[in-house]
Order: sequence, then structure tokens, then C-alpha cells
Amino acid sequence: MEIRQVIGSLVCTHRITGLGHWDLRLLQDTKGKQYVATDPVDARPGDWVFVVSGSAARYAMGNAAILTDLTIGGIIDHWEAHDVAAARPTAALAAKAA
Amino acid sequence: MEIRQVIGSLVCTHRITGLGHWDLRLLQDTKGKQYVATDPVDARPGDWVFVVSGSAARYAMGNAAILTDLTIGGIIDHWEAHDVAAARPTAALAAKAA
Amino acid sequence: MEIRQVIGSLVCTHRITGLGHWDLRLLQDTKGKQYVATDPVDARPGDWVFVVSGSAARYAMGNAAILTDLTIGGIIDHWEAHDVAAARPTAALAAKAA
Amino acid sequence: MEIRQVIGSLVCTHRITGLGHWDLRLLQDTKGKQYVATDPVDARPGDWVFVVSGSAARYAMGNAAILTDLTIGGIIDHWEAHDVAAARPTAALAAKAA
Amino acid sequence: MEIRQVIGSLVCTHRITGLGHWDLRLLQDTKGKQYVATDPVDARPGDWVFVVSGSAARYAMGNAAILTDLTIGGIIDHWEAHDVAAARPTAALAAKAA
Repeated sequence: MEIRQVIGSLVCTHRITGLGHWDLRLLQDTKGKQYVATDPVDARPGDWVFVVSGSAARYAMGNAAILTDLTIGGIIDHWEAHDVAAARPTAALAAKAA
Repeated sequence: MEIRQVIGSLVCTHRITGLGHWDLRLLQDTKGKQYVATDPVDARPGDWVFVVSGSAARYAMGNAAILTDLTIGGIIDHWEAHDVAAARPTAALAAKAA
Repeated sequence: MEIRQVIGSLVCTHRITGLGHWDLRLLQDTKGKQYVATDPVDARPGDWVFVVSGSAARYAMGNAAILTDLTIGGIIDHWEAHDVAAARPTAALAAKAA
Repeated sequence: MEIRQVIGSLVCTHRITGLGHWDLRLLQDTKGKQYVATDPVDARPGDWVFVVSGSAARYAMGNAAILTDLTIGGIIDHWEAHDVAAARPTAALAAKAA
Repeated sequence: MEIRQVIGSLVCTHRITGLGHWDLRLLQDTKGKQYVATDPVDARPGDWVFVVSGSAARYAMGNAAILTDLTIGGIIDHWEAHDVAAARPTAALAAKAA
């Protein structure tokens, strides 16, 4: 799953029936690339969320007939990140071999 | 789902039968990379659309026997984007920790 | 679906049985990155083609037991591209809001 | 499967029910890009792991009803990497043709 | 399918049961990015291989219960690449229109 920020919604009056009446959230990643997702958790602009992709995105809507490939899986309250040594695997290998 | 712009169509007289007689739309992203999609919503050149990928692309055609991996899901009328603080998650984390 | 150019074939005497006796085409994208695809349309080196990925690639072979994830879907005769205003979505949004 | 490092966890009180009560691990790749994964192997911050994506991620949880698209498949004890000639395929081809 | 080079193996004593006792090969692409794959063809370090991804990766193991998303599909004996004009599709279009 990946981390995105909600920045708004899309208005699409002409669309496939398989999306039902679900709102289409407009998301972006940390580089500003935009994505469109269905949203069963009612996220708001500014929220950081994680998204589920692929076939799991349909099941995550609670209805596999919803024809999405990206669904908001949850709203991030906060990160609990640790300060780890971010060495590349190859560097870690060298270290172990030393 | 991702956002693309319709720029034309492809003519392919020699192709797999699993695509039926569907037109193949030529799309591009904001960096100019091109994609090919099936189109059940009759989008026109210049239209901005969102596309559904993976197995959902087949169902989005209304017929899972259509062997596409990318289908236009709807034509974007307009964006309703908000001006949100686009801090990276790690920056947001630092802010919460402060 | 994505656009690739056929540049040759691969010879792999030791491979999984799930690919049958199908030739493996060597493709490349416009940046020179190479891919391997099964080919039910008999494309030739120099041909521009579009490829179908994921589970659709298996069905596109006319036999879902062929264990490919990339199949040539058709040979491109020509592009019918229009000269559209390629503004980014956010720019288009700004224009609409003005 | 891809290699990631565990750096922490995410707290998401508002999320889809399809994830059950599973912890959400925060991972990053060697370029610092972050991902969210479900974790059936109890990995700890600092651990290097490999992740399984797509529909296999659900089965890897031991319960295909868990709506994830990324699951930690194992904790890497160490790499056994060899010093191979990392020539590009095209270069390898030239070498064979010489 | 994509082209990778085998560079070694991973040792992971703590991993999901769905991978059975299969070895985990360590691969890299031409840019040095590393991947982990299951290997039913017994590839060796230095071998260039092609890999099958997604759900086909499980079937390629000869047992869809093996929870991989990347399987080595075959060992490349050699490339039969042709010297084709690698013009971009848009350039090819311009040429046809001229």
C-alpha cells in the first residue's frame, strides 16, 4: 500500500456505471503526481491516507462490483517512525562480510 | 486510477480477437508518455479522463471477455482541488513530534 | 496498454513448461528499456505494437494456461494523433478557476 | 518480490474493516520512498524484509479476506551475493556476437 | 516479462509458510535495482533470465499455492536483436504524415 494526500475531488458526469455514485477523490504523492481513488472512509482534503490497489481495491469497497483499481484504506493519524540505519542492502552485505 | 489526456486513436488492422471492434484510444500523461486504452465512454481528443487498470479494466468494459488492461473510466468535467499543505509524511511526522 | 517496438527474439532452451513452444519477442520502449512478450499476432522486428499486461495477457494468448504476463495485442498501422493543448491538470484547473 | 526496510508503523484509527486488527508496518526502499504493508512475520524497525504484492499479498496473510496489496514475506538474515559481470543484455549480446 | 540477472540468494529463516522450501534468488536489473524471485529453473549467479510477475508467477511455479509475485521463467541463452530504427511513435507519426 502507498501513502497519498487527499487534495480534492473530481467531477465526472460521464463515467462508467461500475463506479456507482461513489465520489472520486483526487490524491497526490509527495512528488505532486496525482491519482484518483474511491473512498469508503470519507477522507477530507489535507488528510494523509494509505491506498489499496489492484483487485483488493474492489473488495475494499465492500462490494467487488465497484470497478476501481485504487481505494483509500484508511486515514493516517500519525507515523511512528524509528531512526534506523538506512544502508542499502549491498552495503549491509559488505558490512556482514567484513 | 490515473489521469490521462486523450490525444487520438490507433489503427491496428492485425490484432487479437479479444479486443472485439473497440476503438483503441491513444492517451498521454502529463510527461508525454503514451498509453493505449479501450473506451466505453466515447472520449474525444483533448478530453482529460481517468483510467482503470488491471482486471477491473475488463469489467469496466461491461464485458470481462474484452482483453484490455486499461479502460477509460470517465471524462473529467473539472477538478475541485484544495490548497493543502503538501508536506512530506516525514516532515509531517517531525511536525507532530515537535 | 503500452506501446513498444519489436527488436528481436530470445532463445531460452531452459524455461518453464507453462510457456509452451511460443516464441519470446524482445521489445523495447522509447527509452530503450527491454521487455519480453509472447506474440499471437506474428509481429516482426521494427514493428510498433501495443502490449497487454497482467492476467489479460494470458487470456490474450487464447489459452489462459500460457504463463505470460505480457502479450502483444496488435501491430500498430498508424497513429491518428491530434494536436491538443497538453496542459497539466492543475494548470487546466487554474484556467477554469480564472 | 522487492526488498524494503521496516522503519516503523502507522496508526490509523479510521480504516476499512477488511484489514482486521493487523498492524500496518511503514517500510522504505533504498531511495527513501515509503510503503505500507501488513506483517504476518512480526518484523521490527531496522529489519530488511522482502514484500509480496498483488493478490498474493492477501493469500500470504493466511486469509485472503485481508484486503492488503503488500505483505511482508520474510525477514532477510543475510544476502549471498556473487560478484558477477553486470553487463547490459545488449552488451552481453555484442560480446556473444564478437 | 522483464529481463534480470541472477546475482545470488537470500537467506530468510523467518518467512511465510506459503513459500515452502523454495530458494529465493536475488536478481538485479541493468540499473542495479534488486529483486527477489522464486526459481523453478535452477538459475545460477551470472545467468540472465526473464521473470514472470503477478498471478502468473504463482502458476509458473507449477503450484498456485506458492505465494510469490515474481518467478524466473527461463534462462536466456542469447538475444537475437535486430538493428531497427528506434524512432519514437510520435516521430514515426510525423514521418508518415510528411
